[in-house]
Amino acid sequence: MKTEIITIGDELLIGQVINTNQAYIAEKLYAVGVDVLRMTTVGDEGEEILASFAEAWKRYPVVIVTGGLGPTHDDITKKTVCKFFDSDLVSNEDVRRTIAARMKTRNIAWTQAHEEQTMVPRKAKVIPNPVGTAAGMLFEENNRYFFVLPGVPYEMKAMIDQSVIPFLSTKVTGSVIRHLTLRTSGIPESMLAKQLGDIDTLLQGAKLAFLPSPTGVRMRITVHGENLLSVEAKVGEVEQRIRAKVEKHIYGTGEEELEEVLGHLLAERKLTMAVAESCTGGLIADKITNVSGSSTYFERGLVTYSNWSKIELLGVPEELIRTHGAVSKEVAEAMAAGIRRLAGTDIGISTTGVAGPTGGTPAKPVGLVWIGYADKETTLALRFNVGDDRKRTKERAAQTALELVRRRILKIE
Amino acid sequence: MKTEIITIGDELLIGQVINTNQAYIAEKLYAVGVDVLRMTTVGDEGEEILASFAEAWKRYPVVIVTGGLGPTHDDITKKTVCKFFDSDLVSNEDVRRTIAARMKTRNIAWTQAHEEQTMVPRKAKVIPNPVGTAAGMLFEENNRYFFVLPGVPYEMKAMIDQSVIPFLSTKVTGSVIRHLTLRTSGIPESMLAKQLGDIDTLLQGAKLAFLPSPTGVRMRITVHGENLLSVEAKVGEVEQRIRAKVEKHIYGTGEEELEEVLGHLLAERKLTMAVAESCTGGLIADKITNVSGSSTYFERGLVTYSNWSKIELLGVPEELIRTHGAVSKEVAEAMAAGIRRLAGTDIGISTTGVAGPTGGTPAKPVGLVWIGYADKETTLALRFNVGDDRKRTKERAAQTALELVRRRILKIE
Repeated sequence: MKTEIITIGDELLIGQVINTNQAYIAEKLYAVGVDVLRMTTVGDEGEEILASFAEAWKRYPVVIVTGGLGPTHDDITKKTVCKFFDSDLVSNEDVRRTIAARMKTRNIAWTQAHEEQTMVPRKAKVIPNPVGTAAGMLFEENNRYFFVLPGVPYEMKAMIDQSVIPFLSTKVTGSVIRHLTLRTSGIPESMLAKQLGDIDTLLQGAKLAFLPSPTGVRMRITVHGENLLSVEAKVGEVEQRIRAKVEKHIYGTGEEELEEVLGHLLAERKLTMAVAESCTGGLIADKITNVSGSSTYFERGLVTYSNWSKIELLGVPEELIRTHGAVSKEVAEAMAAGIRRLAGTDIGISTTGVAGPTGGTPAKPVGLVWIGYADKETTLALRFNVGDDRKRTKERAAQTALELVRRRILKIE
Repeated sequence: MKTEIITIGDELLIGQVINTNQAYIAEKLYAVGVDVLRMTTVGDEGEEILASFAEAWKRYPVVIVTGGLGPTHDDITKKTVCKFFDSDLVSNEDVRRTIAARMKTRNIAWTQAHEEQTMVPRKAKVIPNPVGTAAGMLFEENNRYFFVLPGVPYEMKAMIDQSVIPFLSTKVTGSVIRHLTLRTSGIPESMLAKQLGDIDTLLQGAKLAFLPSPTGVRMRITVHGENLLSVEAKVGEVEQRIRAKVEKHIYGTGEEELEEVLGHLLAERKLTMAVAESCTGGLIADKITNVSGSSTYFERGLVTYSNWSKIELLGVPEELIRTHGAVSKEVAEAMAAGIRRLAGTDIGISTTGVAGPTGGTPAKPVGLVWIGYADKETTLALRFNVGDDRKRTKERAAQTALELVRRRILKIE
């Protein structure tokens, strides 16, 4: 069932509010197999709203509208939808009872605004609002459905979950969609595409989208079909073919973050870790401690920003910094080995680099980062070039360090 | 100038990604007086994209498109826009040089995908991409402007800020809008509104929006008018009236982050600082080191997650932890004093709390945080309740700690 979502509100058009309603509705519809083909946003302006209604209703058999149903002067959606469907308003007794009960609980007096909220278009069915006073509406014409809901997020969500989704679920026939997202780190989009080889052989009718970000590229597999089991099987087959090509770059699926995946690995193997950060400035520790339960494997983190703190806190020989500079393989290794020894953990990692925007030289440009790793058997440091923006440099370096630990634990490469 | 924003991507239609690009562009356009009248989102599907282009271009004189400009097969915007404007593709030497330079810095080999990224529509002007490989495009027809930008947020943002906004600013005529954002920390929206008193007396025709976030509430003043000088004067007057009421809560204006404001304060007074973090897990150090030049005042940060690391690294007496628990006023003070003494800095700060979601007790619930502060004369710790979500707890606690230092330096309260 092809669907358009229309969100109404001036606050969206000036960028004051990010449109999370759209994404919420889309995600819920998608989960039950309703396809959203378009999303439209217009302001609190009658002619624009009317135009968007007409266009959407012409394009698709399902339209879901949110916003502009409140009691104040700028809420004009109800008036506009009446005009669009050529309907008058009638006071609805169920709605009146619901509002009255709500007002009583909250000890608020009945006003003209509440009286107006009891009025609903004669041609619409009422969609109950379990958490607020603005009723929703459904206009139905020849198996085509036009929903109107308030824009207040928790009211909209309650009505989507309790009324719209259960209703539309019964109408969906035929096609099913399933997705799987594979999360990679340490490989650019272009290289990933190259390593995957011929895309048609790989996908055999499935779709694949690349979603890059500073922390890595996500690949989303999409399969459409008539039969749920065969669609799911096909997703699995495409996943296997992709994994056969680029398995080592894939650290997780769905919404899993690298620090969570690494956390599970460490916990499961009863390994402990400590971190000594220079250029990442605490970001690695911050990411690790975003994971609930990280205190079982994360012992400590040191942000050794000054040369002196590297010497004093990590036992890096002063001589080493003088000879090679703080941003060097030797210092990165000494930092990783130092934090591991002093914290008494299984693994130590370290970063030292030029975060920028100043401080770069031809030999050591902005974005140059050494990442150090030490465990019982090995101490090593790898050189990376992670870009030229301070925050992104920190993001990429932190992600690269976590990925290095993941690969060492799993003995990848 | 009436404008439509079109965002392209299947990930938006299935609700996997929230459309922050739209809001970013809208906010920037609004600030220079360009009116966004509609926002449209379509998937990675040629016919839908083409239809949305045709509709938007018919409606309004400015269209801004983002998404689908990457190097992989699912990026079909470039092909589609060529079809729409009936243009062929030519390899562009400036774009080639930019990509080659970027590849060299990041040590990535040249591939067919990069070759394709040098190709731009013959009828378009190139909009340089200062942070990525996908060039933007501008099609111009009789004072009408059709922009196409990549969808990767930081690339899109750089191109909006550096090219699109400066260009469109010169085309806007007539009424003038000016904004000023005042950034506060440590006071909720409702309390701020109460302290501001009667809103009409305060604003005298200006508009004021409250924008809350986990790190504080921003207040945005907006003034419309015909004359730039009088509009700017009025913004200044409203600002002064607001400052007269709530000055101490305002740490900065515009896009200034608290860590930048604090960094200037420290640098200007030649003060140094060190941080000992438990529940914030490195986030304070991360924020401080996001500021270029922070190495002059930030000496070190310790993430003392385990009790043992608090004892060993900060000299917190074991007895203190046993008697009062790690989350206590006494331990927060000992941590702040300890890091200050050991790092030899002017100021030491600390955090210890229950980040959750587990580990709370009736006496020490999730969200309880003690923030410690030590300087030459004073050692103190303050208790805060910062919420029940792990990441938001960290965010709020980190911001509160930075704000505490700002207020101590400026002797506020």
